[in-house]
Amino acid sequence: MNIKVIFKILGIVLFWESVLMLPSLAIAIIDNSYEVKAFIIAILICFIGGLILKNIKSNKNDMRKREGYAAVAISWLIMSMVGALPFYLSGSIPSYIDALFETVSGFTTTGSSIVRNIESMPRGLLFWRSFTHWIGGMGVLVFTMALIPSIGGRSVFLMRAESPGPTFGKLVPKLSESSKILYIIYAGMTVVLIVLLIMAGMPVFDSFIHAFGTAGTGGFSNKALSVGYYNNPWIDWIITIGMFLFGINFTLYYLLLIRKDWKSVFKNEELRLYTFYVLLGTLLIFINVLPKFNYNISETLRHSAFTVSTLVTTTGYATTDFNLWPMFSKSILLALMFFGSCAGSTAGGVKSIRILVLFKSFIYEIKRTIHPNSVQTVKVDGKVIDDDTLKSIMLFFFAYVMIIIFAVIIVSLDNFDFMTSFSAIIATISNIGPGLELVGPMGSFADFSNLSKIVMTACMIIGRLEVMPVLLLFAPSIWKKH
Amino acid sequence: MNIKVIFKILGIVLFWESVLMLPSLAIAIIDNSYEVKAFIIAILICFIGGLILKNIKSNKNDMRKREGYAAVAISWLIMSMVGALPFYLSGSIPSYIDALFETVSGFTTTGSSIVRNIESMPRGLLFWRSFTHWIGGMGVLVFTMALIPSIGGRSVFLMRAESPGPTFGKLVPKLSESSKILYIIYAGMTVVLIVLLIMAGMPVFDSFIHAFGTAGTGGFSNKALSVGYYNNPWIDWIITIGMFLFGINFTLYYLLLIRKDWKSVFKNEELRLYTFYVLLGTLLIFINVLPKFNYNISETLRHSAFTVSTLVTTTGYATTDFNLWPMFSKSILLALMFFGSCAGSTAGGVKSIRILVLFKSFIYEIKRTIHPNSVQTVKVDGKVIDDDTLKSIMLFFFAYVMIIIFAVIIVSLDNFDFMTSFSAIIATISNIGPGLELVGPMGSFADFSNLSKIVMTACMIIGRLEVMPVLLLFAPSIWKKH
Repeated sequence: MNIKVIFKILGIVLFWESVLMLPSLAIAIIDNSYEVKAFIIAILICFIGGLILKNIKSNKNDMRKREGYAAVAISWLIMSMVGALPFYLSGSIPSYIDALFETVSGFTTTGSSIVRNIESMPRGLLFWRSFTHWIGGMGVLVFTMALIPSIGGRSVFLMRAESPGPTFGKLVPKLSESSKILYIIYAGMTVVLIVLLIMAGMPVFDSFIHAFGTAGTGGFSNKALSVGYYNNPWIDWIITIGMFLFGINFTLYYLLLIRKDWKSVFKNEELRLYTFYVLLGTLLIFINVLPKFNYNISETLRHSAFTVSTLVTTTGYATTDFNLWPMFSKSILLALMFFGSCAGSTAGGVKSIRILVLFKSFIYEIKRTIHPNSVQTVKVDGKVIDDDTLKSIMLFFFAYVMIIIFAVIIVSLDNFDFMTSFSAIIATISNIGPGLELVGPMGSFADFSNLSKIVMTACMIIGRLEVMPVLLLFAPSIWKKH
Repeated sequence: MNIKVIFKILGIVLFWESVLMLPSLAIAIIDNSYEVKAFIIAILICFIGGLILKNIKSNKNDMRKREGYAAVAISWLIMSMVGALPFYLSGSIPSYIDALFETVSGFTTTGSSIVRNIESMPRGLLFWRSFTHWIGGMGVLVFTMALIPSIGGRSVFLMRAESPGPTFGKLVPKLSESSKILYIIYAGMTVVLIVLLIMAGMPVFDSFIHAFGTAGTGGFSNKALSVGYYNNPWIDWIITIGMFLFGINFTLYYLLLIRKDWKSVFKNEELRLYTFYVLLGTLLIFINVLPKFNYNISETLRHSAFTVSTLVTTTGYATTDFNLWPMFSKSILLALMFFGSCAGSTAGGVKSIRILVLFKSFIYEIKRTIHPNSVQTVKVDGKVIDDDTLKSIMLFFFAYVMIIIFAVIIVSLDNFDFMTSFSAIIATISNIGPGLELVGPMGSFADFSNLSKIVMTACMIIGRLEVMPVLLLFAPSIWKKH
């Protein structure tokens, strides 16, 4: 493997991370708060490390799939380790493992938290914590490529490793242009969201925090009660719809906003499936919850829609403690968490497109058993899914389930109840945030052992990068010189 | 589809079912018990129905995959519906849905029970209940083919649909010979087991009951405390080893006993994987349970080995209430339940061979990412796994997980805790028997609603026939005339 090109990419990422920490530093300075020093140290480490690594001489074009994948996995790990420094050095989160958990949870847009008393955290750190959601949502390397097209022609592998979903379509022939378009749409939608939240009555700082969490489908809040704190139907509905929209493949916004291609968007099969199960899930939960709580009809609808939207997009905000809902609703929520939303969005989970392809392949297999001689193929949006894509989707699915099984076994060493252990793993590997029972929306991950926290931290990165880039690092042969 | 050939096969199955009920009737007559009349009616229905259907004229050779699969699925359903009659008509199980649940649980070698007070059931019904395990273990149609080679040359599809596992190897060129060899080995091993249990001090009737449950890896007992009732280390170890042995692919016994081919058996990769995780699971649970209970070392080892063996082979006997074990042990047990034992055995679950193939394919995928130009293939026991087999394994895995998700959602309408609903579905679809919490080894499935019982009954048949034959029946196009 070409290690130099990986160091170089890592350098660029670290350099930009130092820049991205500046707004948080500014807030800390304005508030004259205790974390200023921690930010300065972290920024210097990032900046100097970045500068050194960035200038390593390497043959840029010598980047194949393996280098691209490894670069992304390593960058995510190192940038999280550095990103954790402000929390750790300031003493705000005294354990480094906890600080790393929190930062990885931020970048991977998971939103699981080990902080027990979030409202006492200073604003500089709160801003950084939520800003990691926004950065991680669309991808750090995608961001880098939008700014410096100079990484080289083969950087498609970087984008492929970082963008969620089994397929990856370039919007325009030039990759850096694609990244730029994506980021402009992403930033534009975030600004609209901030404005709407302010108009609905949310304080300005909180609007930034919640817009970052919604756009990245992350879920960090600066309130212990999450979005439920405001108890404001306008805010709830804005965030419900916001999360749903950020769970859609961004390519569709490009088609809609720039190419004005309404038809393709409307006919998109993944979007249809996603919309279908969001609506169905909301309806079923609405019917299930309505007679059992003191909510009136509009409150029930609001909480049902919000909770479905927050879990299907793997955001993890809460307006109410859905832990108390009947088992039927909780099972539906668990299934939605597992399915996730669309590929190419900021959301986690298995993704609708994979469920769709696997389901269609299964139907195809049944048809082939009935008519062995029929010549049909599995198609999505009119395009044939080739055997290689199908195979990699299936193996992803298998690896995903196996990792869940092994992670649950390790975490169960802490001897919490099964629902806590199981949902904590689903919540981290699918980048959701809260689980059920002890790690429910009003709970915290603080009580787990360090071993469990490390396993969950690994799960978050594995889930965000969709397994392969991370597991690749464990293959001995990747470290040999080729 | 050629409906006539399906009716004909169903007729043969029903005819033989009436014969197989005779020993139970004999016991009922000896005991002069109240279920005699119920058995006579059930036998007459089977016998007459079988005789009529069996003599339908049909072109035997017009049986393709679809007819074979459909015949197996329909036969399993109808023979269970008739097999439930002795329980229902005698009044021993007053609800027909409960009686059907119990019978399907028997034939599919699941061993989940809705009977609350098993020790009050008369011996004729107890014998029939456990004998269904023995019949279902190796397969009813396999049995039929061993007796009447006349079903026709294409009956390989019947055997393929009924034998667990993704691949299916004929032992000898003639299929009816293969079935006969399998059944002779199966019966021989069962007889040895009965003798050993009697020698260990188990009453004769109980030895038959527990040998049937062990051989079919079913798990029905005539004691409420299951095997724990005897509290006899000899009995525990005989059954532990028995269950493990009946979880091995029967083809290997053929190679070992008749071809004396020790080497192939020793090198068999599925057997190695299966042995590996049985030993590892036992060790880990032993270490985990030892300091937490009042058992001494040999007792702990006995209970650990027994419980691992009973759950990995999806039998479901119990010597102790493992529900009370720490969460770590319970998670391991749950994972073992999911993996299951070997293809071509009487056991349920996903099967080691599938885990092995998927795991190897995943490793292969990693290697191909690192060296895109390498030409390697996925091999098991030196044989290349072709893409079609791989695809059907993957789709099986996907369908399995999806069915679990949907079944859990429906069952959770009963509003039991998650562990109960979840483990009840895993326990039925994997043909295990007991789950955890309310449906733990000392619990019962009686409290579920009828809807849940029907869903679980369906899960048991789907699990036993490994998804495809059952789902095929729901494809509208299969019912058209071709």
